[in-house]
This record gives sequence, C-alpha cells and structure tokens, in this order.
Amino acid sequence: MKRDGSIVRIGIDLGGSNIAAGLLDIDGGLAYKCKVKTDTSSESAVLRGLADVVFDVMHACGLDAGIIDSIGVACPGAVNSERGIVEYSANLPLCGADIRTALSSAVCVDADKVRIANDADAAALGEYRAGVGKGTENFMLVTLGTGVGAGCICGGKMLSGRGHSAGELGHTVIVYGGEQCACGRRGCAEQYCSASALKRQTKAKIEACERDGIFTSMKKLVADNGGRISARTAFIAAADSDTAAREVVDAYISYLSCMLTNFINIFAPEVLAIGGGVSGEGERLLAPLRERVYGEMYDRKRPRELYTRIECAALGNDAGIVGAAMI
Amino acid sequence: MKRDGSIVRIGIDLGGSNIAAGLLDIDGGLAYKCKVKTDTSSESAVLRGLADVVFDVMHACGLDAGIIDSIGVACPGAVNSERGIVEYSANLPLCGADIRTALSSAVCVDADKVRIANDADAAALGEYRAGVGKGTENFMLVTLGTGVGAGCICGGKMLSGRGHSAGELGHTVIVYGGEQCACGRRGCAEQYCSASALKRQTKAKIEACERDGIFTSMKKLVADNGGRISARTAFIAAADSDTAAREVVDAYISYLSCMLTNFINIFAPEVLAIGGGVSGEGERLLAPLRERVYGEMYDRKRPRELYTRIECAALGNDAGIVGAAMI
Repeated sequence: MKRDGSIVRIGIDLGGSNIAAGLLDIDGGLAYKCKVKTDTSSESAVLRGLADVVFDVMHACGLDAGIIDSIGVACPGAVNSERGIVEYSANLPLCGADIRTALSSAVCVDADKVRIANDADAAALGEYRAGVGKGTENFMLVTLGTGVGAGCICGGKMLSGRGHSAGELGHTVIVYGGEQCACGRRGCAEQYCSASALKRQTKAKIEACERDGIFTSMKKLVADNGGRISARTAFIAAADSDTAAREVVDAYISYLSCMLTNFINIFAPEVLAIGGGVSGEGERLLAPLRERVYGEMYDRKRPRELYTRIECAALGNDAGIVGAAMI
Repeated sequence: MKRDGSIVRIGIDLGGSNIAAGLLDIDGGLAYKCKVKTDTSSESAVLRGLADVVFDVMHACGLDAGIIDSIGVACPGAVNSERGIVEYSANLPLCGADIRTALSSAVCVDADKVRIANDADAAALGEYRAGVGKGTENFMLVTLGTGVGAGCICGGKMLSGRGHSAGELGHTVIVYGGEQCACGRRGCAEQYCSASALKRQTKAKIEACERDGIFTSMKKLVADNGGRISARTAFIAAADSDTAAREVVDAYISYLSCMLTNFINIFAPEVLAIGGGVSGEGERLLAPLRERVYGEMYDRKRPRELYTRIECAALGNDAGIVGAAMI
C-alpha cells in the first residue's frame, strides 16, 4: 500500500543471466529486491520473466498495480526510450521487442509508467543519483566485465546521441591495427581493458611461463579454482609477489589507464566510477591506476582538487535496479 | 545606431596570429568584419588588440557603446566562462588574464555583456547555430590544423566538464605506445590526424622516395611552393596518380577515420563537421573518409538516414567570430 504520499518506483535490471528487480526506498536504496534466471529461449519467455519479478515485488511489498508510479527496465543493447522498444540486442532475443506495451499489459500498469533505458546508462544514473556520483554535474561509470560498458552524464544530462547510439566507449580504438574486436574494428579498448581481456592476458602469460619453464603461482591458483582462470587470478598472485602475475597486472593497468585517460580528456567528469568484476580489486587496482592517469591526463597542472576522482562504483550489482527505478 | 529592436552582437576570434572581429547580422552572418595582427609581446598588448577591433566595428557600423548587447571573445586555452578569465593558454601571454574586466572597461560596455569561451567551443557553437550543424541536437566540429581541436554539443548543450576541461579530443591515444605528443602522452590522435601530422607524414615519404630512388611528383610540388611542404602536397599529387602520394593520403585517411569513428562511437552526433586547413580538400577527403567510417562505426546496421553525416564546416574562418558573438 502507498503511505505518506511517497512515490512507488520499481526497477528491473534485465541481464543475460538474471532478471533482478527491486522497490526503491526514499533514500535511493532498495526496500526489497528479488531475481529470477533469465529464460533466453524466446522473446515471450524474457517478457514473462519481467512480469514475474514485478509480481514478486508487488506481492512481497503489498502493492496493488494501481499504486505503482513507475516501472523502469534496464536493457542491454540499443534501446529506444521514447518508444519503449529494444531496437537491437546482441545477447537476448529482443530485437524489436516492445517492452513497454508487453510489460504494462502483463502487470496492468499504464504504459506511460513503464520506461526503459540502456543498462549501462541506467547503472550510471543509479550511481549518479544515489551512489558515488551523488552531487556531481559530470559523471561517468565505466564497467569492466565481459565487455567495457559506459554511461556518461554531462552537465547533468545523460549522453545519448542520435538514435541513442552514443556511449560505445568500449569500441574506441586505443591500439591502431591491434586485436580483432567483435564489432569489426581492430584494437578496441574492450579487447585490452575488459575483465575478459584480463583473463586472456592471464592465460597467455601462464602458457608462456609453462613454455619457458618459469614458475608462477598463478598455475596453482587456477588449479585450486577448478581449472578456471578468473579476472582475479593475476591480481591475487601479484599481491603475493609473483613476477609473472605482476607483469600481467602492470600491462593491464597500463592499457586501462590509457583508456581512462582518454575518457577523462574527453569528458572531464568530477568522478569516474569503475564497476564490474575487476573493480572488486579496490585500491589494488585504483592506487596504481590513479598514479598513471594523474601523471598523463591533459589538465594535470590544475589544482589537485579539480582532478577527476577515480573511485569504485558504490552500488555494485544494485546500480542497474536503482538506476532503472530512477529512469 | 540600433534600429528595429535587433540585438547588437559583436564576436571576436582571438588567435595566435590575428584578432578577427565582426558584427553579427540577423541571419547569423556577419554584417561587417575586420582584423588586426595579434601583438603577443604582453598581456596588455593582446588586450589592447581586443579593444582595437571592437572600436573598429563600432566606428565602421556607427554603434555607440551603450547600444551593444554583447561582446563575445573566443580564446585559445582553458577558459573560465563564468569568471571571464583565461586560466591557461599555451600560445598567448594570457594565463590568469581577466578579459571581461579589461575589455569592458576599455570599450565602456557593462562587464556582464562581455562573455568569453574556448575558441574550439565557440567555432562549434557558430557552426551549430548558423552553419552545417543548424537544426541538430548533437553536433561536433573537429578542426584539423596545427593540432586537433574539437567542440561538442550533446543534446543541445556544449560539452564542458569540470573546470571547462572537457573536449581535449586530440589528446586521446589511438596508437598505444606511438609517437610522442607535446602533452606528454604517446600515440595521441593529434600526432596522426592534424594538418601538422600530415605534413610530417608527407615529408617522411618524400625523404624515403629520395633515399630509395623512387620518383614522386610531390618533390616538384614542394619545389614550386618555395620548398615548403603543405597539408595539400600529398592530396594534389595523389589526385594526379602519384603512387607515393596516394600511400600518404591512404595512411592519413586511415588514421583520421580511426579517430573519427572513435568520436562517432562516443558521441553519435547527427553531424560531424570537419574544419581547419585539411577540410579544404572537400570531397577528395570526405568521400573515402565516409566509406571507411561508415564501414566500421558501431551502429552501422542502423538505417542509413540515421548515420552521422560527415561534412565540411560551412563558416570557414568566420566560425570563431560568429560563434563568439553567439556565446
């Protein structure tokens, strides 16, 4: 039930693995959250999942459909916010899906209360309004996961571009003629700075060590992890003074600082937040990263208090839900 | 004199070589323009030059100081628009110069009528309001000259960033570990895509041809031009089927398309305008550039009418004056 005139906002983060949802509280936190596995077998299966999490929130929080002020959905891919449609999605069967119409009729909420946005934009909005970007005018969230995602707020406004195509920051070339990227270009930042790239770099180093008969503690870490290389492998071994791992981490941070310095020279945000799996390294990642970025960004001669603050994202996995609820 | 209630706006483009000024007409054109050489010997000499061009406009157009609605000054460097101060300028003795106070008292115009902006931003504003960006919401002007300058309008708003530091697009690395840039980084786009870079690339190719005994018509073009290599040398010879020149042009366009595709993936403007000396090549530059950019930009599967239009800047050298008058 709706009490004391507060606004009832539900946020949904639609991912390739899970659909997470929550009810926003007054402080920008989540009063309740839930999730289901994403059934990626068809468009209608995905849409059913969206309705399921909304019913879960309504039931758990005792909300009638009529009392809901907004439902926001954060979707991967190219999203047409005005029309409420996913125009293109690489990972989900949602090309052309009319999320707004489908979800509003499934849960009996007016269509104009259902809003959708790109997932990276929604996460950036969440961090900007309720996380580490609070109080800034210029903010960006860079997510290091399977790819490199980014959402930018410039002068208090989400960067959108014509046809909502802006913000593909992972697909900016930093190594001319470099590694082939799935987007068709060579040398995209995503091929050097994503968590997946770090895993590939770690794997290549372990193989090189094996080939050259050099010891590395990364081998045991991988064996202990069921044979799986993770984005943490090199960081853990490097903290334990493993030379090969140190080389992997140094090279990774060098690429990452190159990409982030580009972004800072372009956008000059007050805060640049790093999210995604790699950001779990915290200061082990941030301290050397700041040193490099602050040593080469264009306006480094400005007073230190004007420097872009480089921080870990504060909302973690909730940023998408919180941001979606705030669309 | 002021007639029919029209607004009297004067724009000044303060450059390292000339100070140009003009009176804006109702259509966004210039009713009158003039220029003086920039006396770079001191801050007061530069400021005197600014007052001189304003007096010239006032005299030629029969304007009293009291009738002037605004004077805008486009300045190179880091400009604090709120305070009317140049915070940093690499090429002019203006670090800390209070342009607003000095100019307003010199020409007897209220201080709040004097506005200043970065020169690249002002030129972009001019093209956006009165040139090739007219009618767009997302626009960028990339100027290929001594360096690579850029001004971006995102969702109708000038990209500014904290401390007006945004928009240093020439100082984004596209060749990791590449050519040393004056900014301290290696591999900045400016080192590959500016007119200066094209001249260096042309010089290197002519020298390589001499060393290897290969004929190139670029040698005669340079000799005919008083021994000076220009940004046009390779383009002219390439149009005349010179193989070595063709290689220079192809490599240059490859770097340029890499940089511009980065910008389009980031900003997705409706129009990206190219200004500066190199843009004088017109379709000789634009046609192959579009082919490459449209072949690799991230949203190339969108309908063609949604593509970023790549055009030459329309206002040429007047963009700075027109934009300054519109600040």
